[in-house]
Amino acid sequence: MTIHILQKEALTPDIKKQVHDLFKVLNADINQRDIEEVLSQGNEFICACCWEDEKLVGMASLATYKVISGYKGMVEDVVVSEAFRGKGLGRKLMERLLVEGQKLQLSEILLFSGHHRKPAIALYQSLGFNLKDSGLYTLKL
Amino acid sequence: MTIHILQKEALTPDIKKQVHDLFKVLNADINQRDIEEVLSQGNEFICACCWEDEKLVGMASLATYKVISGYKGMVEDVVVSEAFRGKGLGRKLMERLLVEGQKLQLSEILLFSGHHRKPAIALYQSLGFNLKDSGLYTLKL
Repeated sequence: MTIHILQKEALTPDIKKQVHDLFKVLNADINQRDIEEVLSQGNEFICACCWEDEKLVGMASLATYKVISGYKGMVEDVVVSEAFRGKGLGRKLMERLLVEGQKLQLSEILLFSGHHRKPAIALYQSLGFNLKDSGLYTLKL
Repeated sequence: MTIHILQKEALTPDIKKQVHDLFKVLNADINQRDIEEVLSQGNEFICACCWEDEKLVGMASLATYKVISGYKGMVEDVVVSEAFRGKGLGRKLMERLLVEGQKLQLSEILLFSGHHRKPAIALYQSLGFNLKDSGLYTLKL
């Protein structure tokens, strides 16, 4: 099992399909942005991928943005293939994103997680994330 | 009273100082990123500013990022000068950010707000924002 950061130059039709298919495990209904377009942002977007025998079995993304209050990273789209859960892959992916966030000298990393997702929340808290006394509000355009 | 989008080319030492001082009303303790550096990101960052007699009396920012699950905007650093509250400036700033988000064809706009900030939450909900059943977790680096 290896974890590395997905590079735009490494994309092949097969890898693009694997990213697309794995994302569907997380959310089959969403209109996915093309991974090539997303990776075209350069250092502002990092996708950590976990491979097992050339099969993509997990991924997690870190999108960054700079505002007056800091240089922040938002963790998004964390998913592990069903057959590979319970092996600590989610933790390894998150740990890799934290290393990348430190390299970028982010001031803060954010994420949001459904209140019912107890194992994910336990993982995030064990990595040092703290629940903020704030609600997350969204507006679909 | 006029609202416009702050442009990097329009920055003067006076405007930079006004941005810095107004942000302090929101949070006096935070280590602010330089507004010139933040605006250097181009279209990825939008700061709506409200001016009254050449005085900056309110501002609100929209930082954007692209991930597989969408092209998203995060509202950050919304502040109105104390003497100008209760006049609907927060709403006008937010409405302007929503227009900019539509122009960029964002799929979704996110924000988080402290549970105790009742007037702000009422404003966001009246603009169509919905509370998600998710917690926001942060890790300071």
